[in-house]
Amino acid sequence: MAAVTPLDMVRARRGGRSARVRDAVLAATREELMDGSYASLSHLAVARAAGVDPATVYRRWPTRARLAVDALIELAAEAVPVPDTGALRGDFEAFHLSLVGLLDDPRLVRLFKAFSAAMFDEDADVAEALEEFWRDRYDGATAMLERAEARGEIPSQRDPHGVLEQLVAPAYYRTLVTRRPLDRRLGERSLQAALTLARDGS
Amino acid sequence: MAAVTPLDMVRARRGGRSARVRDAVLAATREELMDGSYASLSHLAVARAAGVDPATVYRRWPTRARLAVDALIELAAEAVPVPDTGALRGDFEAFHLSLVGLLDDPRLVRLFKAFSAAMFDEDADVAEALEEFWRDRYDGATAMLERAEARGEIPSQRDPHGVLEQLVAPAYYRTLVTRRPLDRRLGERSLQAALTLARDGS
Repeated sequence: MAAVTPLDMVRARRGGRSARVRDAVLAATREELMDGSYASLSHLAVARAAGVDPATVYRRWPTRARLAVDALIELAAEAVPVPDTGALRGDFEAFHLSLVGLLDDPRLVRLFKAFSAAMFDEDADVAEALEEFWRDRYDGATAMLERAEARGEIPSQRDPHGVLEQLVAPAYYRTLVTRRPLDRRLGERSLQAALTLARDGS
Repeated sequence: MAAVTPLDMVRARRGGRSARVRDAVLAATREELMDGSYASLSHLAVARAAGVDPATVYRRWPTRARLAVDALIELAAEAVPVPDTGALRGDFEAFHLSLVGLLDDPRLVRLFKAFSAAMFDEDADVAEALEEFWRDRYDGATAMLERAEARGEIPSQRDPHGVLEQLVAPAYYRTLVTRRPLDRRLGERSLQAALTLARDGS
């Protein structure tokens, strides 16, 4: 319980009252989700935990789905940043390593559990918010491939999202589907598969 | 609603009263899970739906976890059989194709939803049953690699489960995590990644 985990690094050091409100609300949302479920997430409880006027929360995050997906986007951006090491292999390695750190954190599994019932409901708000979450993640991570292309390391990519998918899918699959422990070999295999695809132009 | 789906093909044509009881109980378990949740799965309701004496169900499947995992093993074995086409590429292609057929079936997603809360609970029965489920699946599918090795197509494999993981993870990840639609390109990429690993000895 001592070390700083990826989930702890979420707090951005931005100035201004508006940024502080946003940080407090999204941190409270994350905690509420981890301690309960998406179905029990409430604007009022979040406002109380964040020490913010409920009207502010309702105004800036009109739906529960907005609140949850903004918390997820912030969490993912801070816990699994898109690295820029100067080489595609280094970028993919660093990216996979932070992803494994996040997936290894039992609180992330609690977040997924809190969210999974909602994910499989036919709720249009949730479906749209999740689509936005993954679009945001894939668009951000595509920068690793674009920079490698600009450096002449890899050819032009037909399907950059597909390359990233091959990099991250095994770690998610093991953590959230088979529930087997992550190990280094999985990382090496995923890295190898993604690099091969990228070098083939995917 | 007309065509025979992978889930419909579960019924084995085995003779004998014992096999009929087993088929009826596991089919009823699957239906109960899809219409509710693991938490609401009941031996009594399963016995009633299967037309079987409750004492028989309790005797042969003492826990809810046993009932659920036997239903899953039967479903997976029938819907995603381990093919034997005479070539590793053909085997992987056929295997991935039936997996996609299963994952594309909305009833499978309902099964996963029914089970996901239990998966993330600290229930030892469930954890053990799931471990057995995946061990059974991986052991069965490893035959594809063993036959390819025996034919001299690929070298001896250091980590056959890892190769299979690279083959199936992206399809599971997309269906159960990102919730994006499956497409042919994903299958081609996964096949390529798994074949490359197998040819390298993984």
